[in-house]
Amino acid sequence: MSGENAASSPLRAESIAKWDRDADVVIVGYGGAGACAAIEAARAGASVLLLERAGGGGGTTAMSAGHLYLGGGTRVQKATGYEDSPENMRDYLMQCSDDPDEEKVEIYCNNSVEHFEWLVELGVPFRDSILEERVMMQRTDDGVIWSGNEKAWPFREHATPAPRGHKPQAEEEGGPLLFAKLHEAAQAAGAEALYDTAVQTLVLADDGRVVGVMARHMGEELAVRARRGVVLCSGGFALNESMLRHHMPRIAGKVESIGNPYDDGAGILMGMAARGTSIHMSEYHITLPHYPPSSLTKGILVNGQGQRFVNEDCYHGRIGAYCALQPGGIVYLIADNAHFGWPELRDFELAETAESIAELEEALGIPDGMLQHSVEVYNRHAKEGRDPVFHKQETWLAPIEEPPFAALDCRLGKAPYMAFPLGGLWTRPTGEVLTAEGQPVAGLYAAGRTTCGISRSAEGYASGTCIADATYFGRLAGRRVASASPA
Amino acid sequence: MSGENAASSPLRAESIAKWDRDADVVIVGYGGAGACAAIEAARAGASVLLLERAGGGGGTTAMSAGHLYLGGGTRVQKATGYEDSPENMRDYLMQCSDDPDEEKVEIYCNNSVEHFEWLVELGVPFRDSILEERVMMQRTDDGVIWSGNEKAWPFREHATPAPRGHKPQAEEEGGPLLFAKLHEAAQAAGAEALYDTAVQTLVLADDGRVVGVMARHMGEELAVRARRGVVLCSGGFALNESMLRHHMPRIAGKVESIGNPYDDGAGILMGMAARGTSIHMSEYHITLPHYPPSSLTKGILVNGQGQRFVNEDCYHGRIGAYCALQPGGIVYLIADNAHFGWPELRDFELAETAESIAELEEALGIPDGMLQHSVEVYNRHAKEGRDPVFHKQETWLAPIEEPPFAALDCRLGKAPYMAFPLGGLWTRPTGEVLTAEGQPVAGLYAAGRTTCGISRSAEGYASGTCIADATYFGRLAGRRVASASPA
Repeated sequence: MSGENAASSPLRAESIAKWDRDADVVIVGYGGAGACAAIEAARAGASVLLLERAGGGGGTTAMSAGHLYLGGGTRVQKATGYEDSPENMRDYLMQCSDDPDEEKVEIYCNNSVEHFEWLVELGVPFRDSILEERVMMQRTDDGVIWSGNEKAWPFREHATPAPRGHKPQAEEEGGPLLFAKLHEAAQAAGAEALYDTAVQTLVLADDGRVVGVMARHMGEELAVRARRGVVLCSGGFALNESMLRHHMPRIAGKVESIGNPYDDGAGILMGMAARGTSIHMSEYHITLPHYPPSSLTKGILVNGQGQRFVNEDCYHGRIGAYCALQPGGIVYLIADNAHFGWPELRDFELAETAESIAELEEALGIPDGMLQHSVEVYNRHAKEGRDPVFHKQETWLAPIEEPPFAALDCRLGKAPYMAFPLGGLWTRPTGEVLTAEGQPVAGLYAAGRTTCGISRSAEGYASGTCIADATYFGRLAGRRVASASPA
Repeated sequence: MSGENAASSPLRAESIAKWDRDADVVIVGYGGAGACAAIEAARAGASVLLLERAGGGGGTTAMSAGHLYLGGGTRVQKATGYEDSPENMRDYLMQCSDDPDEEKVEIYCNNSVEHFEWLVELGVPFRDSILEERVMMQRTDDGVIWSGNEKAWPFREHATPAPRGHKPQAEEEGGPLLFAKLHEAAQAAGAEALYDTAVQTLVLADDGRVVGVMARHMGEELAVRARRGVVLCSGGFALNESMLRHHMPRIAGKVESIGNPYDDGAGILMGMAARGTSIHMSEYHITLPHYPPSSLTKGILVNGQGQRFVNEDCYHGRIGAYCALQPGGIVYLIADNAHFGWPELRDFELAETAESIAELEEALGIPDGMLQHSVEVYNRHAKEGRDPVFHKQETWLAPIEEPPFAALDCRLGKAPYMAFPLGGLWTRPTGEVLTAEGQPVAGLYAAGRTTCGISRSAEGYASGTCIADATYFGRLAGRRVASASPA
């Protein structure tokens, strides 16, 4: 058996001659979700064994900026002068997908302040300050940023805007600090971690209940019994090319897929082999990292027909989502000399520059006045401080009139888009993995990107939802499995 | 056990005390795919048992118009003066998805003429005539129609247009006639069919090989052994609301999902429970049945910003696909008095009418000149016989200038869209069901909409691909399973 075979048919318990290890709770994958499941399960008195393929814990959480999408009135929100409530947060999140998981959204919003405080108690520091600037990567230690579409149309019509992207206090990435605190707490609670241990398959009793896993540790097979249950917290499928092609053909191969090397879908596939079902496998977060400089937000995005298609001031993930939907993936960002600046985060190329919009249009091959019309309409309204067509906020409106004019190449397959999938196992808020019929698979739980979580659409993604969701529902899964009856 | 539990965990062979029936080949579902698998398997000398939930065979095939997407130089194509070749057909089909199954497309195109002749030998009649008119439902007995995007931009730039929608010779629907001939052939070949028989779950040997099924027949449980293999041909998941919501949230609940009552995904779920994997579950065919009258094709489709977004002369499925992608699902068809006509197939409503485009724009709430601009650009080019923006063919170009003007309501959730899913089990051309790792599940085959076939994107769907794919790959699966070694 090798890592590639991780989704092999579940083994039957009777084929296990001897269990090499056992624990009440076996957690597959030691990132943010796994750590939180471990803390809660161990604190509830369960013996906990974490199995991690890498040489240490951390997963994607420790690679990230560490933003957690939290709200409903956190200490940082209050200190920075923003009002929020669980209901307001709920109203926002319910707009973020065509198929929101209402039960998860509800419990997540109602307990967001509690989750914030829980993290603080673990020693995760948050500064009572806000970075108001429109950024994609936060390089300050401020406690909160605007990390979604809260202020952008049409979201602002459904809920009062509040910033919710909470970052652990660190100058650079906050993920390492966040994970370090989770790791300390997991250790303190008595959870044991075994590294370089790749879980290959689940072990099932005759009645289908998950009772353990078969892993590979230092070249040896390891049969691990899970008395109360197994929690799959092994990330998503960002690095599984076949799955990307089969579930998100529109962008597969045309974007950089981001994740950690073990995001190969193993947890999802193992869960499915035990009768779990996966949902929303075609949904993704996609970003066009074109700002800073935020001045580019004053430009307009147009497709191959020269038409605008989105309010350019929305969250970069929503922008990426709409870009990916344009015919042929053709998109240009049009800016004038007054507002053009090279994107700071990644290398972009100019498609064309010209001394007039008419020349730019021709150079881009945009038909017959279409770009000129879009610019003319935009400029006319911008001067009046409004955007009746796409509802960009006044702050970001400025006429495009100072030559030369630039068209930043934002074409799918050309520009440096980054993406990761949002689909995964269907679970209850408790982490119970569900079959296609909506029945829990006995003994099997999951959290983090092995599951389909709160964020489940490119148009509605907000930074910090993945880690907040992973850590919060990781906790719920840990509590639930610790209280399950032993097999 | 009930029909709702069809995806129950596979049973283990050792739990079967006694097999009630056996056959070399057990086929689950007796529609177009199942019938063709049965014919080929029985002709190859295998004993064949078809298990069908309904009171008789037919499935969705028998409910349909019966179009088969065939080409490469069929008798009907030649007689009607159209040149085609396997390579040309391949060039067309490879444009129809971002993730085409090249192997399936290749074999399908290379053998399309053979498949046509095979059907003719079974007694399926095709008239050597073409209906050139732009229709959505064919109510004549002509042998072929244009059933895809062959003549539309951008497809016409990749392959020479040829009509490929072959219809069995019948005044109304051709599906009943097609199925009747398949049924005759299956009977003649010695296949046995058992009706009112709902397969509940697959039966697996210890090594994971599929060795039979457990079914429910007339209130009794029936254990059916499959010596050489099981072929799942039980349709798609058009009628499974939970699956629709979880895999295609953009349109679920906003369109009429079409299929037969047994398209509840049972075959897909059973295949997955035996380690098969499903792909492209979010892809669908969606149609806006707004023509005839074809004169409406001379109108323009616009979104809530008054922008055109597609060449209105493409296949109705491609139109539906683009409509569904417009922000908020807002779409209107704008036509003038000279070209407006009520859609004949389904009830539509007028969103607004007005004496001028400016008034219409205002009545629709389209911002500030945007619709007027779209109409102005369209009209100016239409008078010159061209459409540089969306490349509609000259035949369908006409200025929109004779008042009154109408906006047909084509909003998602309001207009009578119809859709069905295209995702399903991942299979080889031979019908072998594949695991997520691309390995065949021993003893398990599938064809028809239980699988993901040739057509796998809304933008590229063509009428007739489902039945052609189901019948052709059904045949290949039947041949393959008949030659498999017995368990």
